[in-house]
Amino acid sequence: MDNLDLAAVYVSDAQYNRKIVFDTSPQAIRLYLLYNHWGMQFLVYAFIVIDLALAIFEDPAVIPLPIWATTMIEIVCLSAFGFRLVHYAKVIPLERFWKDPKNICIIVIILLSLVDIIIYWLLKAIGLFAVRWSRVLRPLLLVNITEGRQLRRALRSIRNALPQILCVFLLFMFSVFMFSLLALKLFVKRGLTTTDGDAYFTSYLEIVFDLYVLVTTANSPDVMMPAYNSSVFFALFFFIYILINTYIFNSVFLAIVYNNYKKYLKQEVRQLVKVKRHKMVQAFELLQEKKGEETVVTQASWNQLVRLVQPDISNAHRELLWSVSDNSKKGCIGKGAFVQLPDLLNMQVTIEKAEQPPLQTLLPPLYLSIPSRLVCRMVRHRLFVYTYDLITLVNAVFICLDEENLLIANTEWVFLALYLLEILLKLYTFKPRTFFSRHKFWNWFDTIIVISPLIAMIINSVVKSEGYTSRQILDIVFILRIVRLIRVVDRIKRVGVIINTLIKMGPTMLTFGQLIVVVYYVFAMVGMELFKGKIHFFDVKSTHPDKAFCGNPLLKNSSFAKHNYCKNNFNNVISSFILLLELTVVNQWHVLASGFTAVTHVSARIFFVLFHIVIVIIIINIFIAFVLEAFFVEYTMEKSDLQSSLEKKIKELELGIKHDVRDDDMSSYEPTKEKPEFLFKIKSKRYKTLDGLMQKMFEADIGPEIFAEDEDGDADKS
Amino acid sequence: MDNLDLAAVYVSDAQYNRKIVFDTSPQAIRLYLLYNHWGMQFLVYAFIVIDLALAIFEDPAVIPLPIWATTMIEIVCLSAFGFRLVHYAKVIPLERFWKDPKNICIIVIILLSLVDIIIYWLLKAIGLFAVRWSRVLRPLLLVNITEGRQLRRALRSIRNALPQILCVFLLFMFSVFMFSLLALKLFVKRGLTTTDGDAYFTSYLEIVFDLYVLVTTANSPDVMMPAYNSSVFFALFFFIYILINTYIFNSVFLAIVYNNYKKYLKQEVRQLVKVKRHKMVQAFELLQEKKGEETVVTQASWNQLVRLVQPDISNAHRELLWSVSDNSKKGCIGKGAFVQLPDLLNMQVTIEKAEQPPLQTLLPPLYLSIPSRLVCRMVRHRLFVYTYDLITLVNAVFICLDEENLLIANTEWVFLALYLLEILLKLYTFKPRTFFSRHKFWNWFDTIIVISPLIAMIINSVVKSEGYTSRQILDIVFILRIVRLIRVVDRIKRVGVIINTLIKMGPTMLTFGQLIVVVYYVFAMVGMELFKGKIHFFDVKSTHPDKAFCGNPLLKNSSFAKHNYCKNNFNNVISSFILLLELTVVNQWHVLASGFTAVTHVSARIFFVLFHIVIVIIIINIFIAFVLEAFFVEYTMEKSDLQSSLEKKIKELELGIKHDVRDDDMSSYEPTKEKPEFLFKIKSKRYKTLDGLMQKMFEADIGPEIFAEDEDGDADKS
Repeated sequence: MDNLDLAAVYVSDAQYNRKIVFDTSPQAIRLYLLYNHWGMQFLVYAFIVIDLALAIFEDPAVIPLPIWATTMIEIVCLSAFGFRLVHYAKVIPLERFWKDPKNICIIVIILLSLVDIIIYWLLKAIGLFAVRWSRVLRPLLLVNITEGRQLRRALRSIRNALPQILCVFLLFMFSVFMFSLLALKLFVKRGLTTTDGDAYFTSYLEIVFDLYVLVTTANSPDVMMPAYNSSVFFALFFFIYILINTYIFNSVFLAIVYNNYKKYLKQEVRQLVKVKRHKMVQAFELLQEKKGEETVVTQASWNQLVRLVQPDISNAHRELLWSVSDNSKKGCIGKGAFVQLPDLLNMQVTIEKAEQPPLQTLLPPLYLSIPSRLVCRMVRHRLFVYTYDLITLVNAVFICLDEENLLIANTEWVFLALYLLEILLKLYTFKPRTFFSRHKFWNWFDTIIVISPLIAMIINSVVKSEGYTSRQILDIVFILRIVRLIRVVDRIKRVGVIINTLIKMGPTMLTFGQLIVVVYYVFAMVGMELFKGKIHFFDVKSTHPDKAFCGNPLLKNSSFAKHNYCKNNFNNVISSFILLLELTVVNQWHVLASGFTAVTHVSARIFFVLFHIVIVIIIINIFIAFVLEAFFVEYTMEKSDLQSSLEKKIKELELGIKHDVRDDDMSSYEPTKEKPEFLFKIKSKRYKTLDGLMQKMFEADIGPEIFAEDEDGDADKS
Repeated sequence: MDNLDLAAVYVSDAQYNRKIVFDTSPQAIRLYLLYNHWGMQFLVYAFIVIDLALAIFEDPAVIPLPIWATTMIEIVCLSAFGFRLVHYAKVIPLERFWKDPKNICIIVIILLSLVDIIIYWLLKAIGLFAVRWSRVLRPLLLVNITEGRQLRRALRSIRNALPQILCVFLLFMFSVFMFSLLALKLFVKRGLTTTDGDAYFTSYLEIVFDLYVLVTTANSPDVMMPAYNSSVFFALFFFIYILINTYIFNSVFLAIVYNNYKKYLKQEVRQLVKVKRHKMVQAFELLQEKKGEETVVTQASWNQLVRLVQPDISNAHRELLWSVSDNSKKGCIGKGAFVQLPDLLNMQVTIEKAEQPPLQTLLPPLYLSIPSRLVCRMVRHRLFVYTYDLITLVNAVFICLDEENLLIANTEWVFLALYLLEILLKLYTFKPRTFFSRHKFWNWFDTIIVISPLIAMIINSVVKSEGYTSRQILDIVFILRIVRLIRVVDRIKRVGVIINTLIKMGPTMLTFGQLIVVVYYVFAMVGMELFKGKIHFFDVKSTHPDKAFCGNPLLKNSSFAKHNYCKNNFNNVISSFILLLELTVVNQWHVLASGFTAVTHVSARIFFVLFHIVIVIIIINIFIAFVLEAFFVEYTMEKSDLQSSLEKKIKELELGIKHDVRDDDMSSYEPTKEKPEFLFKIKSKRYKTLDGLMQKMFEADIGPEIFAEDEDGDADKS
């Protein structure tokens, strides 16, 4: 274990934005490498998924399993988390381990879960009522593992916004209470009735709840109609209310969440850059050699380093990166250039070997014959693409038409044949390796879309299943083909920017997905304990007498039962998640809440309002804030210095491909005669990691001069 | 008419951001002054309001008037607009007049309206069906008058965003059509039924409409329930749909509108600053005198100028402004300092004369006696304010309690007496003029709240009206008193910022109000022609047999009638506006649309979808964008250079009042013994005009160096 290995660890930490400070003894480094191994990380996530998925098998279960089985699995998962933690404790200095709140959190979660299991079994043994309350803690593991950095960041940004949100929320509630008082005085004594003949606005708390629901617009205009029917002027009251409490306050919540999100993200990324540079400086110091006045890293050790960090890098790519770093061709680089290495490695460069299509190698006379050349020329022509866009469009029209008509149903196979032809032609013209290279999403998509119905058809004719469903899957595959039309609009530059931005947001959406899983899981667990078995769903075909009121007499004639919402219940974890999703969409949430209030008591209303506050005020606003920020960055973004210097280099070396060629649009790719052996292309504006995009977002503010000198506990907070 | 007068006109143009370029002949200037007179502007708005209000009296009318009367009034209004235009033509150079699209617009509107009136009368005379189609044009007058600058700006910013919005909208519709195709294949043949037993997802166009409604979340989760009841997996389809088409696309629309709004606003304000500086340079050139090398304006002519521009300015205030401009006390100022004059004039400075309370002047021994001093001290103490906050809180609790209890009802009068005492004590301690000065909103509010129930009570006992309603008005006044509680939260700094920002947004809200009136009016006119008289509302107490289906047999058993939505119709302009407001809130809009579709034909659906697109995609997003921008400016805003130099001056001259004293919070105002004759205070962060706030928004980007040298048609575009 020499300096080079240690430096490689530092560089790869910097590349993947790991902020862990580890012991530098050879054994600790080996353990650290094992800790960061993708297999270990995969295992951790696998165990978390298993642990969370236990809710499917535990009572109330989707698929019931005996309690001892789920308990066994849970104990296995918990010990896996324990082992992982012990591993982590071996890697980093002990005092750092105990200072880090996320480690303490995991220990507490594991201990509490074990205590819960023991209590549960004891209570069961003596025949008492027992609740597995520690299930609420499970999603917190997702937050507290080392890899949950994005999630912790999102949660911290929420925590920072909380005081301000609370202030506005108080103001908002004050306004709701004020308006409720006004409504009380205005409406209570008028003896108005709702459509169902019930009394309208009976008590103060009822009014507060109704007006709170109106903030979400879920009961508009119904809540207004009785008053409006009695006098036009009352409509004014409701619209002032909606203007203030729905439109203005909602915008203010968004403004606060967005502002804090942006501010906090900036701080976090600044912190990240600091740690990253610090790691790179450490790596530099391990490899540095004296050369005259300066301390430098030689090309030889740089090459060894890069090979260690990224074993699969091609020589050409590595040499390109070196020539960017060592711009003045001195054979060695200083600290400034060395520190840029992780960013260079993170920049996606596509390398295209100047290979020939296989047929050209195998049968040159045939491939170079005039008809063959004509075919190649045709495939490369713009009109070829347009023709296929037109075919897809016609296909879309045919799909809309009545499929009962056999003639039309059979045209599907004509279209399939046409698409197959397209792929074959392209494979003939271009190199297969280029066609199927990693980033050519659309080529992969086309191929899958064409091949899967063929496979489906074969399976279908062999298995002879019940017919309709398999035919339907086929239909869906056919319809997905229409997604190809996006490529048409994608060519319009304005739309292209939008689609690109949307695609780029993908990885961050995953963070939000995790955030939502955490929140949903906690609410689902609590909801299941509170409401399980209160509402029953009877199959559509069932003729059970209780079907009309969801199996609970308390729901007789309720709007919940009338709306046929029986399946929206907390009877198992999947139902709960779907119900929570419906509540996130907000509409009709008061009807859903009313159903659960009817079957239990006031607690249901509190549960539903609490969920609404958490999801709509915080989570959805964070989501909007992220989308807004991503778009503003896209609109104002210029290429970073580093990227353009890489591009300049590629141009200088005449290694580039025409830059405006979309990677999925092969039509305009015209091979030149005297082309170099390799072709490089920067996948511009695309970053391997999410942090890369974020650094880009705040690049202007951070500046290149930050070199972390202080080694204080920063790294712990990750 | 000398140079000074002309310069005063330029300065006041710059102060109020008027961009008009006028002839400089004495007669034209006199006409121009008349044109800008507030009375003339008031008249124009009055005629526009009358013209728009005609819809109340025209068929379908709220209050029917004979057609000849409304026509006469309309012709009077049109001639008023004509005169105003002729006046404008006399003021500005003729070629500029004809180059300006807004003048052409007004001429076209007037001519078309006259043509419409003539055609209408002719058709009526020969007994044919006639429509007053030119009513749709009326709100456009609001846009095209000289004073409608804010509105034109908002519309231009929308126009600029349109191409991008269109792109995303196409993408969005593409996605809706795609998902509809999938839904067609997935659901049509399953024979699913809705709660009412109707077939579910019957035809492609029905699915497209249903899924479009789902984008607004108005039919969630009802549209999903039949599919979800048949299989859990179908829920996935709907949530992917909502994620993409509701959450992501809505955020993208907001991002685009916000981005364009910001970009365009910046351009506009830059333009405004340019014109303003140009006007000031013109004014400077009229007044300049040679002094050695420099051209300057002397204090004498500056004083005359300021007196002309703002006749009501106090000498002390004027001298303060001069001492800020002439910082080095040379007795004259250069171009740079002169150009700042409109900004200085726009800065709100409160002047408090060091007057004594009247009693102190009248009866010094009494006022200065120990008990009296004690009272004054008490009133000034913080505890006094806290006590009254507590009293208001107790009052709020009492209002919530049952008012049937006579004891509690009578406590209202105790509270009233306490509030009256508070005002009297404050008047005793402070100078009445300070207490009732223009910006002390809360003092005025308190006084009105206290006095109005007294007046109401007197009127009530004299008139002996029907009792309940007048008692109710009294109740509302009592409730408004609780608004005082906002002052408690206002003292928390974080909440204060938010309330301040909200108050500051007021004037711009007016622009949005106008924008909404324009859009609503156009849709209301069209809607009334399409749907008038199709749906009838029967009074709550009516027992008419047609009441159950809104007087239209086509609505029998429709969900529109079941929801009791009969009063949501286009039978007159007020109903139409309320209906459009409900459609803006979006919820249940598909039910409303279904009602009108039932009584007419497919046109209703187009009308409702069109309205939805215009309002929800454009207008509401512009509104959110404005609120967001206002908050971000507030969060990042530092005091401008000019303002702080004014403050420095005030401090230097020892004329300031403690700055952190809120103008409404008199408790901490402690008079010192040797105080100067005048006290100045900058109403910090408050601007007289909206443009002032906007300039502030983009101050950092504009920089002080812009002096418009080119006199090209910029000014016309206002």
